[in-house]
Parts: sequence; structure tokens; C-alpha cells
Amino acid sequence: MAQSTAISAGISGSARFLLDCKATGQSCATNARYALPNLESKSFLCGQNAGLRNKAILRQGANARTHKATLKERRQVARATAAVKEPAVGEKAGVVENGKDKERVMIIGGDGYCGWATALHLSARGHEVAIVDNLVRRTFDDQLGLQTLTPISSVHTRVKKWKQIKNKDIKLFVGDVCEFDFLADAFQQFEPDAVVHFGEQRSAPYSMIDRSRAVFTQHNNVIGTLNVMFAIKEFAPQCHLVKLGTMGEYGTPNIDIEEGFIEITHNGRKDVLPFPKQGGSFYHLSKVHDSHNIAFACKAWGIRATDLNQGVVYGVKTEETSLDEALINRLDYDGVFGTALNRFCVQAAVGHPLTIYGKGGQTRGYLDIRDTVRCLELAITRPAKLGEFRVFNQFTEQFSVRDLAKLVTEAGRKLGLEVKSINVENPRVEAEEHYYNAKHSKLIDMGLEPHYLNDSLLDSLVNVAIQYKDRVDYEQIMPGVSWKKIGAKPRTGVALAKS
Amino acid sequence: MAQSTAISAGISGSARFLLDCKATGQSCATNARYALPNLESKSFLCGQNAGLRNKAILRQGANARTHKATLKERRQVARATAAVKEPAVGEKAGVVENGKDKERVMIIGGDGYCGWATALHLSARGHEVAIVDNLVRRTFDDQLGLQTLTPISSVHTRVKKWKQIKNKDIKLFVGDVCEFDFLADAFQQFEPDAVVHFGEQRSAPYSMIDRSRAVFTQHNNVIGTLNVMFAIKEFAPQCHLVKLGTMGEYGTPNIDIEEGFIEITHNGRKDVLPFPKQGGSFYHLSKVHDSHNIAFACKAWGIRATDLNQGVVYGVKTEETSLDEALINRLDYDGVFGTALNRFCVQAAVGHPLTIYGKGGQTRGYLDIRDTVRCLELAITRPAKLGEFRVFNQFTEQFSVRDLAKLVTEAGRKLGLEVKSINVENPRVEAEEHYYNAKHSKLIDMGLEPHYLNDSLLDSLVNVAIQYKDRVDYEQIMPGVSWKKIGAKPRTGVALAKS
Repeated sequence: MAQSTAISAGISGSARFLLDCKATGQSCATNARYALPNLESKSFLCGQNAGLRNKAILRQGANARTHKATLKERRQVARATAAVKEPAVGEKAGVVENGKDKERVMIIGGDGYCGWATALHLSARGHEVAIVDNLVRRTFDDQLGLQTLTPISSVHTRVKKWKQIKNKDIKLFVGDVCEFDFLADAFQQFEPDAVVHFGEQRSAPYSMIDRSRAVFTQHNNVIGTLNVMFAIKEFAPQCHLVKLGTMGEYGTPNIDIEEGFIEITHNGRKDVLPFPKQGGSFYHLSKVHDSHNIAFACKAWGIRATDLNQGVVYGVKTEETSLDEALINRLDYDGVFGTALNRFCVQAAVGHPLTIYGKGGQTRGYLDIRDTVRCLELAITRPAKLGEFRVFNQFTEQFSVRDLAKLVTEAGRKLGLEVKSINVENPRVEAEEHYYNAKHSKLIDMGLEPHYLNDSLLDSLVNVAIQYKDRVDYEQIMPGVSWKKIGAKPRTGVALAKS
Repeated sequence: MAQSTAISAGISGSARFLLDCKATGQSCATNARYALPNLESKSFLCGQNAGLRNKAILRQGANARTHKATLKERRQVARATAAVKEPAVGEKAGVVENGKDKERVMIIGGDGYCGWATALHLSARGHEVAIVDNLVRRTFDDQLGLQTLTPISSVHTRVKKWKQIKNKDIKLFVGDVCEFDFLADAFQQFEPDAVVHFGEQRSAPYSMIDRSRAVFTQHNNVIGTLNVMFAIKEFAPQCHLVKLGTMGEYGTPNIDIEEGFIEITHNGRKDVLPFPKQGGSFYHLSKVHDSHNIAFACKAWGIRATDLNQGVVYGVKTEETSLDEALINRLDYDGVFGTALNRFCVQAAVGHPLTIYGKGGQTRGYLDIRDTVRCLELAITRPAKLGEFRVFNQFTEQFSVRDLAKLVTEAGRKLGLEVKSINVENPRVEAEEHYYNAKHSKLIDMGLEPHYLNDSLLDSLVNVAIQYKDRVDYEQIMPGVSWKKIGAKPRTGVALAKS
């Protein structure tokens, strides 16, 4: 049995697996079809009172029917967006928007990429934060011979440094949510108002390494989430479950993707039903399973949940993680855990050609990690009602892999880097040219003011990569996991590197 | 590690759980909306050449838009149906319809209710059959203090008796498909052309007893199916997976339920997508998860699969299980594993009021177990193409719980039984009055000639119940599992009986 201990240093965790953060691991994305405002017919306004109207235009754009837009047009929009007031993250510090002074927020997977940044963001804003994590994400790196580009501190050091800098406590429960006794104890000690569940194996390629990793991913993610639901029902029935899903749950249907539900008219009758799901890896499928389970629990038990179907996250710095090197976030560039844009920036920095999988027309939704943490804050401070199962599509812009490669190539040139691209055999089974238009207005309606991808962000990402380029292991760059070649025989880290 | 041994007697199996057969455990079903031919405008034909035309009318009826039909009308149809030639099961004996003399069929869960009947049916028709089962279904009965109405033999005795009577071997692999080494060995020894996967925990109430049973159900079902998919990919890539799903995966949407997929037109664009799923228990949800996983594996790996979304199965006798008492099938009447119609017939036989959950308007699809075995034969002998994921809705008629109660009451009266009904508090969370119209033409198009529910069947079911009435334990009859009261604390069999 796992033991649970609320501490700030010096624990050994459960040996079983759990994970860390959500960021789809979708290294891919087509066809330059974007949900953008029509620049020709709607001008962006500047000036003090124009903010609201510009936001309305952007919102309308975000949900507009798709049209083809050139890369140039999209970058114009990114600049026009600057006319919309984007408050510094710090502006909201200390402000909790729910009428309560503090929310007690348990962050499962709080040592991971999105989890760590979210924990600090919420702690800085006056919430009482606890991290629950079995730290297995670090074990994955050890086992596969991988390493984050940025030199991250231990979770114990991280939490101590945060206390030194901000005089704020973050409680730490090291253990596995698949062990119910451990989770129950953490719930009873911490008594959360909200649980953010990043604690899943979050890499599509990891889930496609071999049978044992496929099974681990589905077991860990599905059973972990079941346990969290039971802990809420048993110990904290008012607690709001904020669950990280993925845009990859929807696949790439030939119709517009709605936020969780779609009204279907069929043979003269109508119903609003869950949007059909088509997960493209055992990882994505595990999140499909979670969504179905949570929807049922909300209905049957009256608990409350928000499912955040997140796009591909990029970036490494948030206001809080930039305060001290001991608080720095992880940045994965390898073929297993690295997400598309982050990977390309590191490749550009070290002179490796950008690795476009297949035709590169794969289009997905993307967002800046600074928007991830803000979306979590919005979901927590404006909770779902008891019995409600909400679904938000959490991304801000759509790009194809080909488009990302072009953007990184341009940004690199400005820094004096010669950036090339190569088309490598697609290790995945996915459409490489397809229709894609996903709605994402609910978080914007709640107040999200997106950080759009632009030159300065790309520059800073590439510059972070340049800063740590001596840590880059070139052997980690190429994809080593094939959707078709996955087999029953376990693959060791060594075998994986050689493939 | 589990051991695998091909034997016909004397093995102890793996201690871990797996299961047995599919039959939704849906004790409920409304509103007298049925997919039936319009009796006023289409008359049934009699005579030698009328068979095909009558079948066409029935098929059309099966897919017709719903209309309200009185119980009397439906029973008229049941009688009219007799005009359509229904071949005795034996007529097809020895005939394998796939161009091959024999199919090698592995039946996972072959000791269970549907699995055992299917194993004998296929063996009688010349297929080479192996049963893979860890016999945990029998353990569930032991643990919960339950017992099948009919006195079933051990699986070893069953197989020996079949050999004595028919001189046909059924290979037996006792072990757990969640243990991949065991499953791999069984695959390599038996080299199946088709795998029928009944090997799941198949009761909705069982999955709602407590957290540990919910977790067990999803782990056992999802991981077991993942292992079967990997075994096919690794050892038998041509092998056809025939997976038992459930009509309960669809829930009760306010639109017609299609067979697996629906064409959706949305904002001027079209796609054919998986029919949205709304499982109503952790059991039903486990099958939703399986369906998504299998669809992905067919696409990514090019394996072939048929997902049979089965309705509630009733009846106990098939031609083969009737040959000797040692071959008799199980008949569950308890609140955990008993399905609606079977339970009502046993209640009628022993003078217990029929237990209608809530308003009794819950409508579901039903089928005779003789049609279950025939549907499996049809799926196996007309396999899916490589890479294809087919979905068939496997049931023949729709009934509400209220209607079933009326039918059993009438049938009982003819046997001199005074049958009463009571409305008990619904232990489930489900709509008790709702629209329901599910398509089910694909198996009929392939040649299924349904055994419709009629007086003689009801009589025979009630008579079987009367034959074994001394074995009835009255304490098993009432429902003891509540969807809302499920908790994290494990419930023992004793606690369960007392609740």
C-alpha cells in the first residue's frame, strides 16, 4: 500500500506509475484552414474603449466558419490581436473570482509540464495548493534515456524555493492515485474544493511503444480517474473535478468540431449528444474513456466536472517559473514526449532539420502554456454546477505542422540561424491532409485573453533552446515509435533508442 | 504467471478475474414504441413461395420508423411471424458457409451463459472450438452467495459429456486473458481463425456494487480486450475478432439508434461518424471503451473485427444444451446477474411478484439465446474484411419492462399461476419513459431468422423455472445494488445480501 504524507521534502513515492501533465504529444497538425476573423471585412480597433469590441471580433473569429488563410494573413491577425488588451498575468494576483477568499486546489500531476506551471500560477493568486504526484514522469525519462532540455529541480527543491521566494506553502503528497488508500488519505487531509487532474500518462508515442506501455497508459489513466471520481463522491461531494482531456479525442472529422456536444437531427428527431470520438492512439483513447466515465458520474452521482480538451501546448516560461532557475519548467524535445512546436524550436536552435512527419498537413489546435494556466484558473474560479459535466475546447489557434515549420524557419532566420526542414516517414496512422475546424469560444467567453503565437514568442522559445543547447542529445530527436510496428514484446530504453 | 494447458479435465486456473458472457444485465426496458411492420397495410403471406416476401416485410418492419403498437398487435405479429419459415437450428448442422471446411474458433468466456451455448452450437456445426475461460463467473456466484437456477456441471464435465454424446473435442484453456503470457500461449497452440470474446464481466449491477468492482470491471474488460487485440496482431493477423458489445453503449438518445455509425450533416458538411455513446453503468462504459479501442486497432493495424451490440438475452435452452442435463446452461434470476425476462419468469414460477424497477417504461432490445448463437455463427462464417470494423445491433424485438411483465403475467395465467407485479424503487439512474428505436437489420440481411418472443417460449421458460423452483433462493430476488449508493468501501457478499 502506498503511504501518504503531507510534506515539503524527503519522501519516496509509490513505485507504481502515474503521470504528470497534458499536452497531447500531437506532433502534427492542415491545409491552412483556420478559424480567423475576416480581415478584409472587419477591422481591428485601437484605443481605450475598443478592447471589448475587438474581443468580440476575435471571439467571432474563433468560431467563424473556416476559410483558407495565408500564413501572412494569420500573422497579421496575431499582430492585430495586440490591439486587444492582454493583461499581464500578474494583474490578477491575489484575486480569486468565486466569492471565496481561497480555493483549496489539489493538482494531481503537479510536478509535470502543465501541472507545475499551474500549481505556481494558482498559488501566486492566493489559492491553497497541494501537489499530488508519484513522479513517474521522471522515471519515464530515466528508463527511456531521455532528458528535458531545461535543468529542472527535484519537486522538493521546487516547493522549498517557492516558499523562500513567495512565502507560500505548496503541500506535497507523493504517491499514486491508482492506489485508492493513498488518494483517500490525501483527500481527507487536504479537503480540496477543486481537483485538477493532470496525473495521466500524456504521450501518444509512449502509449504506442509496446503492449505493456499501451496497457499501462489505459490502466493508469482510466483507473486513476475512476479513483478520483470515487474520492470526490466519498470525501468531497462538492469538489469540482477539472480534468485534462485532449483535442485528440475528436480525431479529424470532416465536420466542425463542437465543444463536447453536438445537436444531431436524424430522421426528423433531434437530440444533443456527446460529440463522436475517434482517438488516434492508446493515449488519446484513454482520455476518450475518461470523458465517458466522468459524464456518467456527473449524471449518476450529481458530482461536478469540467473536461478541458486541450490542444498542443507550447512555450516554457510563465511569470512564476521565470522567477528562479530552481522553478524552471521542463521542455521536452524528444520524439516521445516533445510536442510539435517545442520540438521544432529546439531543432532550429541546434541546426537539426525540422522533422515534418509525412506531408505535414496535419492540423491541430495549439496554445501557449501561459494560456493553459489561465484556463485552469478560469475553470476553477467559475466552477461547474453540481451534476454538470462541462466540456471546453482549450486552445487558441489552429496550425498545420507545415505552417509551424514555416514560422520557426522565419523566426530562426531573424536570429541568424539557417533552418531546414525534412519530411520523415510518418510514424503515426493519421490523415495528413484533412478538414479541421474546432470551436473554442467557451473559455474566451469566460475571459481568456489568448497569447497568440508571434515572432517574439518564437524568438524567446528558440533563445531558450539556444541557452541550453549543450544539453541536447541528438539521438533523441528522430521519432522512434511506430504506430504500425508496436508489438507484444517489451521494448527497453536501449532497444528504443536503436530503433 | 498464469499457465496455459490444453486439456479436457482437471486444471486449476489463474486466480485473477475474467468473465464469461454477455447479456446486458439490463433489467429494464418503454412506452410501447416498437419497430414493427404495419399490420394494417401489409399482410403476411403463407405458402411455399411466400417465405422470402414475408422475410422482406419483417426486415422492413425491423427498420421501420417507430409507431405505437398495442401489446395485442405485437403478439399478432409474433404469430404472423410463424408464417415465415424458421428453420430448425439443426438444419444448418455441418454446413460452414465461408468456403472453408472448418473455422478454428476460440471462445473466450466459453463457460458462461452465452459462451457455452455458442461453443456447442459451433462445435455441432463442424467448427474446431476452444474455450478460454478463467471461470471467475462461478467465483462471483460463490462470493455473492448466488446460484444459477439450473444445476450446471463443471466445465470439465461439460466438455467430457459433449465428447461422449457428439464425439467432438472442445479444447479447454483455463486462465485469464488479462495475463498476456497465458493468452499468447493459447493463441500459439490453437491458431484461431476467429476469436469470440465473451470474456468480460457482463453485469451492470456487479460493476456498481462498490469501487473495487467498478475498477475490476473496467480493468478486466478493457485490458483483456487490449490483450486479445495484441495477440491477434502478433500471432494471428488474419484472425477475425468477434467482440460482444451491448446495446447499452448507446444509452437512450432521442433519435433513432443506428448500427454503430451515423451520417451527420453539420454546418453544411457531412461525415459518417461513430454513433455517440452514453453508457449507463461502469459495465456499459467498459464496452464503450472497448469499441473505441477496437475501431482504432482495425484502422492502425489492419486487423478485422465485428462488434456485436447485443440486446438483453432471454431463454435457456438451445438444441445442444438440451441434449443432456450435464450440458444444461445457466439461468440467473438474481438481482445482480439476472436479466429482465429470465428474472420475471422465475419470479412468476415461485409466486413472487414481478419486480418492475420504477415506472417500467424502460425500453430495450431483446433476443432469444437461440438467436445469439446463430448471430455468432453468421458473424464468423461471413467475416469482416481486413482493416474493417463492423458493428451489428444484435437483437430482434424491443420491449419495455412493463410490457414484459404483462406478457409473463398472461403466460403464467395459462399455466394456472397467479402473477402479480410490484413497482420497486429503481436502483439505477436511467430514464423511465423515453423514445427508443434502434436499427437491427444487418444480421437479418445476413440471414438471421429470429425466434420472436411468443407464448410457447414464455411457457417453456416458466416451466423450466417451475422444474427447478426448489432451488430458488428468495433472498436473491430483490435488487441490492444502487447506482447512487455505490461507495469506496468494499462490500462483502454478506453485506450485499443484507442491504
